Amino acid sequence: MSSVRHEVRRGAYYDSVVLMQLQKSLAELQGVEDAAVVMATPANRDLLESTGFDVAGIEANADDLMIMIKADDEAKAVEALSQVDDLMQQQRSAVDQEFRLRSLSGAAQRMPQARWVLISVPGRYAPGVAEEALRLGKHVFLYSDNVALDDEVRLKEAAREKGLLLMGPDCGTAIINGIGLGFANRVRTGRIGVVAASGTGLQAVTAAIHNLGRGISQAIGTGGRDLKTAVGGISALQGLDLLNRDAQTDVIVLVSKPPDTAVAIDLLEAAQASGKPVVVNFIGYAAPARQIGQLYFANSLGEAASLAVDLRAQFASTADAPLANPIGERKGYLRALFSGGTLAYEALLNLQTSLEPLYSNIPIRPEQALRDSMVSQAHTVLDLGEDEFTQGRLHPMMDNDLRLRRLQQEMADPEVGLIMLDVVLGEGAHPNPAAELGPAVAEVKSARDIEVVAVVVGTDEDPQGIADQVDMLTEAGATVFFDAAEAAAYAGRLLRPSYSYAYPGLALKDFGGQLAAINVGLESFYESLEGQGAAAVQVDWRPPAGGNEKLMAILAKMKGK
Amino acid sequence: MSSVRHEVRRGAYYDSVVLMQLQKSLAELQGVEDAAVVMATPANRDLLESTGFDVAGIEANADDLMIMIKADDEAKAVEALSQVDDLMQQQRSAVDQEFRLRSLSGAAQRMPQARWVLISVPGRYAPGVAEEALRLGKHVFLYSDNVALDDEVRLKEAAREKGLLLMGPDCGTAIINGIGLGFANRVRTGRIGVVAASGTGLQAVTAAIHNLGRGISQAIGTGGRDLKTAVGGISALQGLDLLNRDAQTDVIVLVSKPPDTAVAIDLLEAAQASGKPVVVNFIGYAAPARQIGQLYFANSLGEAASLAVDLRAQFASTADAPLANPIGERKGYLRALFSGGTLAYEALLNLQTSLEPLYSNIPIRPEQALRDSMVSQAHTVLDLGEDEFTQGRLHPMMDNDLRLRRLQQEMADPEVGLIMLDVVLGEGAHPNPAAELGPAVAEVKSARDIEVVAVVVGTDEDPQGIADQVDMLTEAGATVFFDAAEAAAYAGRLLRPSYSYAYPGLALKDFGGQLAAINVGLESFYESLEGQGAAAVQVDWRPPAGGNEKLMAILAKMKGK
Repeated sequence: MSSVRHEVRRGAYYDSVVLMQLQKSLAELQGVEDAAVVMATPANRDLLESTGFDVAGIEANADDLMIMIKADDEAKAVEALSQVDDLMQQQRSAVDQEFRLRSLSGAAQRMPQARWVLISVPGRYAPGVAEEALRLGKHVFLYSDNVALDDEVRLKEAAREKGLLLMGPDCGTAIINGIGLGFANRVRTGRIGVVAASGTGLQAVTAAIHNLGRGISQAIGTGGRDLKTAVGGISALQGLDLLNRDAQTDVIVLVSKPPDTAVAIDLLEAAQASGKPVVVNFIGYAAPARQIGQLYFANSLGEAASLAVDLRAQFASTADAPLANPIGERKGYLRALFSGGTLAYEALLNLQTSLEPLYSNIPIRPEQALRDSMVSQAHTVLDLGEDEFTQGRLHPMMDNDLRLRRLQQEMADPEVGLIMLDVVLGEGAHPNPAAELGPAVAEVKSARDIEVVAVVVGTDEDPQGIADQVDMLTEAGATVFFDAAEAAAYAGRLLRPSYSYAYPGLALKDFGGQLAAINVGLESFYESLEGQGAAAVQVDWRPPAGGNEKLMAILAKMKGK
Repeated sequence: MSSVRHEVRRGAYYDSVVLMQLQKSLAELQGVEDAAVVMATPANRDLLESTGFDVAGIEANADDLMIMIKADDEAKAVEALSQVDDLMQQQRSAVDQEFRLRSLSGAAQRMPQARWVLISVPGRYAPGVAEEALRLGKHVFLYSDNVALDDEVRLKEAAREKGLLLMGPDCGTAIINGIGLGFANRVRTGRIGVVAASGTGLQAVTAAIHNLGRGISQAIGTGGRDLKTAVGGISALQGLDLLNRDAQTDVIVLVSKPPDTAVAIDLLEAAQASGKPVVVNFIGYAAPARQIGQLYFANSLGEAASLAVDLRAQFASTADAPLANPIGERKGYLRALFSGGTLAYEALLNLQTSLEPLYSNIPIRPEQALRDSMVSQAHTVLDLGEDEFTQGRLHPMMDNDLRLRRLQQEMADPEVGLIMLDVVLGEGAHPNPAAELGPAVAEVKSARDIEVVAVVVGTDEDPQGIADQVDMLTEAGATVFFDAAEAAAYAGRLLRPSYSYAYPGLALKDFGGQLAAINVGLESFYESLEGQGAAAVQVDWRPPAGGNEKLMAILAKMKGK
């Protein structure tokens, strides 16, 4: 009959690696069946319960260390518990005394060429350490998780002002100057740069690029929350700006879970503004097209990697990418008056990557819902074939009256800068739509300098005569496309503000040569840096007052904080 | 000073084409500045108001016809109004008396070979006409909109039972046996079949395929609501089943706005079950990959067309598509225990196209939210690197303890059929994860016949030795992939029920030869059928009691309805 014994150590800090190794040592002791050494968080308690430890009656909270031993008999369990301190002592560090320091400032003096600080201390202590690193003028790789969002915003804004990069919090991986930080696959150096708000996304893409025979210039992690509205993509935009300027980077890959709308628009603008092909994989994002200008939308991480490798191979030829119309050439709002619902939807899908605020009577997102279909707001995409418009009247593909009247209405709005129309030819449709829409387009063009974009759907066999229809629209002054997605991309590019990075750029000299870094926290990261040939020092970080919350509060009071 | 006069005609039915033409004739009268002839729906009233007609004081509702004249002076306005009846009379029909009938049953007798009925009467009358067509054993193209959802469900279920197709309501377009129904571009006949729940989606894709030099076998519209849960994709599944069996179709294109989750799963299953390449464009849907088996996900309508054309060209070579593992070979639930958050997310994105119900601690859709991260439900995808699991313990990429314990827990659940794991190699990660996970996998495999799928992310330069890691996992019995999307597609295919179409199929003989059709409603559709070389008869449909609601109610009472 096996016996279970436990011990709780209250409010003291232990390095997670130490705990893992202690657990393994205890489990290997003779007569011990299972051992657990964990902080007593609710998740850990549940986990122990589910794997056969009865922890319900044990008083301990998330700051307490819980040591559980299940052994063959009571004596063996007690014996194992008695060895805990000895086993902890035995764990010798692999870090040479010479590169082991007590403080970050001391480490910075020891290795002044270190431009990078890796931080993996517990979340509640991490902001303080990161602040000190920024004060010392260092870039930060912030591995720690459980950091508050407003701390992240504050730290990133401070870093940006100084032209410093703060990757994270909860940044698991990066590759800087050929050296992996945190978790990173070993990949060859090459000419593909990566910006990723997702850790294993960055790993999967860089590993796949290596496995396809190409290499990485820089791979910049941002932490998963960087693309939330609150943070605004600060790190990702810094990374894009850097890779745009970096002569070692030919192709850029941008990976994340779907960003918040406004941040996605900013990122895609920044990506479009670069002269380089950018592969975008917002995993689970409804990509608006396969390609818009030099943006290439991938549907999976594997595809992102293979697209990047293909683009790298054809780099010379991608310079003349399509859609090179100038960004931000026009002012004013877009008003799209579609007769075809799906064309309207595809245009909306595309425009939502570049224009905001954007409204529609067939909204894709709830916030796009138009208050009143009869009145446009800001940028508006209308499906005039919706039921609300077609009761007791012909479909707008047959009868242009509705659109002609709406055109008058939009033209009278001084804030309108671009009008989009579709012209759907074929059986059943109006026999000569351009004869009615063309003069209206000409009127719009002559009345005010409004751009008119027309999407024509048709074939050379359609009864209306597609060539004549296109001629009439073109002569009236419309720019004609045969694909709603392309028309929308053109319009979006024309109307959105032109992008330029408005903060101090990251210094290119920090992204090249041998990496030198200070590691604060998990020793295994120091060992990894050393093993990869980076210059590194280790800071033996300990929490103030040994992690004892009460003592810390008293100390803080004494310091007048 | 111009003068406005109006007339309201209450509760009477008029053909929309007649109204459009009347409006044009009035507007062309000498001295008339603008004219409007519309049913007085709120939308039409707003529209008139916005284009300079003051309609606020006019009493009229959606069933009333409103005629507005703006003329140079009062006399001219009054004169114009007085001509309304004459102008209506003058509109001569282009339909020969011989092909003009008063009832659908009469038309069916006149042209017994007609397998199709086109219906474009006002929405409130359309279900009755469609029912009659189904009773007569005809396929239905239901153009009418404003039809209630439960009418749609009832009609489609009735059609399906009889092996008949009911496209619509609000179905704007289709191409059957080379003849366009409703709105349709003229395209050559060819070997690409289309099923579309979106009208201009179907038009844009078929026109683009024609413009790329290929042609269409059949293009089946379903109406926009077909892929709602309530309807369950009845028409789309009929269409897929037909095109699967149709020897004239080599490649299938499936187009719609994003379907409801369960319907998307059914459609993709049906598509996968076919032996033909299927291009899927759920416009605005987050495609899970570029390709899964013979499914190809396009991001835009234009791309869908060009993909279909490419696939048509390589048809012979696509027979040996990847992922030919049998569908539904395994029973039970999937439990995915990921250390990498992005890998978990990509797997979830993929699995949600095939497995339901599906839960996760990083849900993509709200309904996927796992109640308690510690307890799996049905199919579950876990990111064990989330904050809730990592407080006070190392990340699962470094420490396998959490996963080993969770593996035990999942193995103990008799409903589990497949376990998925990721193994992320590289710097910072566990030095030999397969040494710990391998034996656990072997235990799973020996304890019960559970399938284990492993995703390995790594390179040949990673310190763990990727070849050794893969060997250990394979020898333990895991099926190893290097791409999370591919692993998920494999697992989804293995676990989901195999698909077979369970209703009477549409008769292939109806899809070939000369199209013969009965048109009930808009005459322009009859003219279009004739012009394209189809055999057609026109039913001069009139609403019961001339559309007078009160009279209709009395008649219905007298008939004991």
